[in-house]
Amino acid sequence: MPISAHNAQAIIDHAETKAREMGLAAIIAILDEGGHLKAFHRMDGAVLGSIDIAMRKARTAVLFQCNSEDVWDYLKPGAPAPHLELSNGGLAPYAGGIALKCPNGGLAGSLGVSGGTIEQDTKIAKAGLAAFEATLR
Amino acid sequence: MPISAHNAQAIIDHAETKAREMGLAAIIAILDEGGHLKAFHRMDGAVLGSIDIAMRKARTAVLFQCNSEDVWDYLKPGAPAPHLELSNGGLAPYAGGIALKCPNGGLAGSLGVSGGTIEQDTKIAKAGLAAFEATLR
Amino acid sequence: MPISAHNAQAIIDHAETKAREMGLAAIIAILDEGGHLKAFHRMDGAVLGSIDIAMRKARTAVLFQCNSEDVWDYLKPGAPAPHLELSNGGLAPYAGGIALKCPNGGLAGSLGVSGGTIEQDTKIAKAGLAAFEATLR
Amino acid sequence: MPISAHNAQAIIDHAETKAREMGLAAIIAILDEGGHLKAFHRMDGAVLGSIDIAMRKARTAVLFQCNSEDVWDYLKPGAPAPHLELSNGGLAPYAGGIALKCPNGGLAGSLGVSGGTIEQDTKIAKAGLAAFEATLR
Repeated sequence: MPISAHNAQAIIDHAETKAREMGLAAIIAILDEGGHLKAFHRMDGAVLGSIDIAMRKARTAVLFQCNSEDVWDYLKPGAPAPHLELSNGGLAPYAGGIALKCPNGGLAGSLGVSGGTIEQDTKIAKAGLAAFEATLR
Repeated sequence: MPISAHNAQAIIDHAETKAREMGLAAIIAILDEGGHLKAFHRMDGAVLGSIDIAMRKARTAVLFQCNSEDVWDYLKPGAPAPHLELSNGGLAPYAGGIALKCPNGGLAGSLGVSGGTIEQDTKIAKAGLAAFEATLR
Repeated sequence: MPISAHNAQAIIDHAETKAREMGLAAIIAILDEGGHLKAFHRMDGAVLGSIDIAMRKARTAVLFQCNSEDVWDYLKPGAPAPHLELSNGGLAPYAGGIALKCPNGGLAGSLGVSGGTIEQDTKIAKAGLAAFEATLR
Repeated sequence: MPISAHNAQAIIDHAETKAREMGLAAIIAILDEGGHLKAFHRMDGAVLGSIDIAMRKARTAVLFQCNSEDVWDYLKPGAPAPHLELSNGGLAPYAGGIALKCPNGGLAGSLGVSGGTIEQDTKIAKAGLAAFEATLR
């Protein structure tokens, strides 16, 4: 089941609400299961550099069906795939990208958040994930 | 005055409503005055090829501060700038991209629509423009 | 003799003066004999799309040591090299780019102008060329 | 308030004067608040490799609204965003790029300098910044 526009809007709404509560201007990018852009929202005041970062986190997550930071384990110093980060046009092996799975385990898409610190982006992304999961119930 | 998230959401909402009335699945891309992505919405069922087209129309409009189809006059057979379409990473000299201007004439950004015929995309884009102008009142 | 910063500044000054006389906001790009950027000036009010066009005209001129529009003869319908415009990252086979030659015939660099009509850009570019030639005397 | 051609020329003039005092051939790139090239000056004798570096420093600064070297804190070994440098077409997380702010705190653009050591580039960039700030008074 690919991600729907309805799912995407719920993710954006909740992630934005969370960012606003935290006093942040965030960018939320949502990709479908093929890595193609489904929805995108840039809050007023977010820096331009975060556009690419939000998309890159989401792309990293959907390409490997994991959280973006999980890719770090494959490419960190001493890990088995040094410079894996150069594949696929450049990965973002840090938190803020989350793969979205259907109840049956299939891939639905991903979301990526940028605008604050990595910890802040992660909280906003998790709010988006929770909103996605709520749409599935 | 750059385009705000509030402006962008109004554009997407009205353009989507128009597309739905017409029985179409459209993609709406909104750029700021520097050509950077502000918001993006892909209705369920839109073909993947339209993602790039919607963005390209919007980019063409913001780069030249006009409707995307106006660029055709510069590069059509016999016109003074043949192959101008190869500039700026590839232009979209056909309708569906509209520059968004502030009441004072300054550039606020642009929108681009793809998903139907050029005529259908134009109608949807104009609904988005009307929504933008309504937010300025 | 490659183009100097002194030459480049003279070109920009005179081209800008000409553009101002004509009531235009132009962009002037100057490349060295290897096609690398030497100087660049964007007058206030020029559209963003003209940045790439000015550079592309200058690049076309220096790559083929001619005026940018001269390339048209090789690729126009019926000419011997159809789609030559796709070479070199995309050529600009229309006027506004001029190769700069030393008195001994050697290549010094090129200039490209964009911002007005092709005729207007050509006038501004020629003012730049005259300024370059004056620095050689 | 986006950067004006007048601001840009003042930056280039003062940065060049500083570089000349230091016996260096520098490159100065100036971007507007959307990261688009506003002005560029390459002093005679600067190496070609510095063209891209000057632009990349300026781009890094404008994208994140900071000094280019500030980005290092996010991606250095042990920092939370390893390989952030791969985002946005490749960042320059070292000194010589400075975001230019208006008196009201808004972003006006950025400048980037390359040609000497990082310390030398920084001194030249700061001379450019001082000239920008002087134009605002």
